[in-house]
Amino acid sequence: MSNTIRVLGISGSLRAKSSNTGLLRAAAGQLPEGMEMQFANLIDLPFFNADLAERPAAVQAFFEQLKQADALMLACPEYNYSIAPALKNAIDWASRYPDNALLAGKPVAICGAGGGMGTSRAQYHLRQVCVYLDLHPLNKPEVFANAFAGGFDADGNVTDEKIKSNLAAQLLALKAWSLRLKG
Amino acid sequence: MSNTIRVLGISGSLRAKSSNTGLLRAAAGQLPEGMEMQFANLIDLPFFNADLAERPAAVQAFFEQLKQADALMLACPEYNYSIAPALKNAIDWASRYPDNALLAGKPVAICGAGGGMGTSRAQYHLRQVCVYLDLHPLNKPEVFANAFAGGFDADGNVTDEKIKSNLAAQLLALKAWSLRLKG
Amino acid sequence: MSNTIRVLGISGSLRAKSSNTGLLRAAAGQLPEGMEMQFANLIDLPFFNADLAERPAAVQAFFEQLKQADALMLACPEYNYSIAPALKNAIDWASRYPDNALLAGKPVAICGAGGGMGTSRAQYHLRQVCVYLDLHPLNKPEVFANAFAGGFDADGNVTDEKIKSNLAAQLLALKAWSLRLKG
Amino acid sequence: MSNTIRVLGISGSLRAKSSNTGLLRAAAGQLPEGMEMQFANLIDLPFFNADLAERPAAVQAFFEQLKQADALMLACPEYNYSIAPALKNAIDWASRYPDNALLAGKPVAICGAGGGMGTSRAQYHLRQVCVYLDLHPLNKPEVFANAFAGGFDADGNVTDEKIKSNLAAQLLALKAWSLRLKG
Repeated sequence: MSNTIRVLGISGSLRAKSSNTGLLRAAAGQLPEGMEMQFANLIDLPFFNADLAERPAAVQAFFEQLKQADALMLACPEYNYSIAPALKNAIDWASRYPDNALLAGKPVAICGAGGGMGTSRAQYHLRQVCVYLDLHPLNKPEVFANAFAGGFDADGNVTDEKIKSNLAAQLLALKAWSLRLKG
Repeated sequence: MSNTIRVLGISGSLRAKSSNTGLLRAAAGQLPEGMEMQFANLIDLPFFNADLAERPAAVQAFFEQLKQADALMLACPEYNYSIAPALKNAIDWASRYPDNALLAGKPVAICGAGGGMGTSRAQYHLRQVCVYLDLHPLNKPEVFANAFAGGFDADGNVTDEKIKSNLAAQLLALKAWSLRLKG
Repeated sequence: MSNTIRVLGISGSLRAKSSNTGLLRAAAGQLPEGMEMQFANLIDLPFFNADLAERPAAVQAFFEQLKQADALMLACPEYNYSIAPALKNAIDWASRYPDNALLAGKPVAICGAGGGMGTSRAQYHLRQVCVYLDLHPLNKPEVFANAFAGGFDADGNVTDEKIKSNLAAQLLALKAWSLRLKG
Repeated sequence: MSNTIRVLGISGSLRAKSSNTGLLRAAAGQLPEGMEMQFANLIDLPFFNADLAERPAAVQAFFEQLKQADALMLACPEYNYSIAPALKNAIDWASRYPDNALLAGKPVAICGAGGGMGTSRAQYHLRQVCVYLDLHPLNKPEVFANAFAGGFDADGNVTDEKIKSNLAAQLLALKAWSLRLKG
């Protein structure tokens, strides 16, 4: 049985050139030994609606990725001082799988790219969501990236070394936290 | 020029038989003199995505309703301790109209139906969103309806008299608040 | 009857050389016409405790200042991601006066000096407090001052022109908001 | 070396007959095997003030208790929709010990007695405080006790069996969480 920690990266932005998605790519480019990362794609997830008779294929594919994941890395944009709907909706879908089995107990790293506060307002809302879902977000380091200060290229790739090293430190902390929670 | 206060009711639930939508219907059924209410329909609003070349017709129709509205009444479900994505997404769309012109300065009433805390956790997140958008939510009365204690019928209609009277009190407060802000 | 708007400035820091208290002094130094400001002094306020048989003199003096105030300006430090106890305690005391009569309906401006996020995390908690107390905080401009980037002298006086002009803009907005709420 | 988990109970209410302090007593009365509990007494803690030349004896005594604690149980009153100043102040003092050494990494259980929402609004603020201090609050079970519905006697003792069993369940969860974090 593998000891590798499989991380699912979920970006709350649907834009092709999103700096939040860029954070996840930058993280994946510098994974510590013993971690691997996949990416969820939220573009085809519909809004959760209890009236839907069946779960769309995109939802089922997302569930399969979550089943394989030991930990989550959430790139959390901030829209109007709270969470981006696409990210919240993905989490809401996940919480409806036979109950909360896809999420309960998993370690989580949260990062975000936005204005000068680096999506912090949205991240604290997201942390409240984690309480209900029994997710275990890392306390530190928090990653608050300013996307309007030259740290990203036009395709949303991280170019700033400080942001990269923050992400690297967060991955190391997520690895240690995952191992600690696994016992 | 009319002195009527035109309220746009926006329910964050997409379910046909939603108790949150039921709160808005119950409110509309007991409007004070000098108020009228229309309802937004969010079912066809796509996720906001800056890559979209054009604004879909459903977005434009929603914008037209907002232009006509003097005040908003938001029915705020709670999913996993925060705001329902459909409601947050509608607000995010509105904030992208030529800037914030559709929302800035408008008075808002917030209500919600959910578990025993009546969606309060989501409502406080929504209030933080209002800060950025320069919306003016009523402080009181707050409306926290328990949807699992027999106050709604199977179609989501409010049957509980206490919930109805809370909504009536909130409408009166919204009217007074709207007039006060109008000067 | 005077049309002057009397503002009570309340700083949540007890330090003699506090940068938060410095924000209030900087505000008082550039009041718009038609506003005047007094300062509360929280240093002798004990913790609220329902067992106390009598209200200490410092509490009564604070109540007298609140009675004279048309509006509040709160300088909100951030300690460990939330509100400074001295500020919260002053507000809690005020809320126990014959009910909420000292606070209900008053307009409020919130500012803060702290780390890179300028006490924003604490300020959003303070805004939630305002909901219960029926206070009406300004939405904009928010004042988030970085106290560790050279904008204050060793006595806590504001030296940075940008922070001063933010405060001046907030006072103008508070004046307009106070007049709007007064009708 | 003992495997006993030593819990420090900290009640944010200073009242002698506080229902929040009663929650801690009720918890201590039904500790699972392998746990023991002491109580902090906050009544003599002054407000934190960086100008204080020395740390008062009450602060030092509190620090000694924290040094001995493997885990914390926080009884969190709600005053005006946020944290009671006495509790926040105790935490703020603790965070100033040589840095954060008294708190970092400790598991925490949060409970509260108040109105119908059981101090939930204050508890979510407290959880945000835990992020900065690297405390690890339990996600579940949350304990929200209604102090105005007959579950406490006039001395603040818990009389309601449901509240007692919620506390017992929380202690078991705190024990398991403490052991999990200890590795």
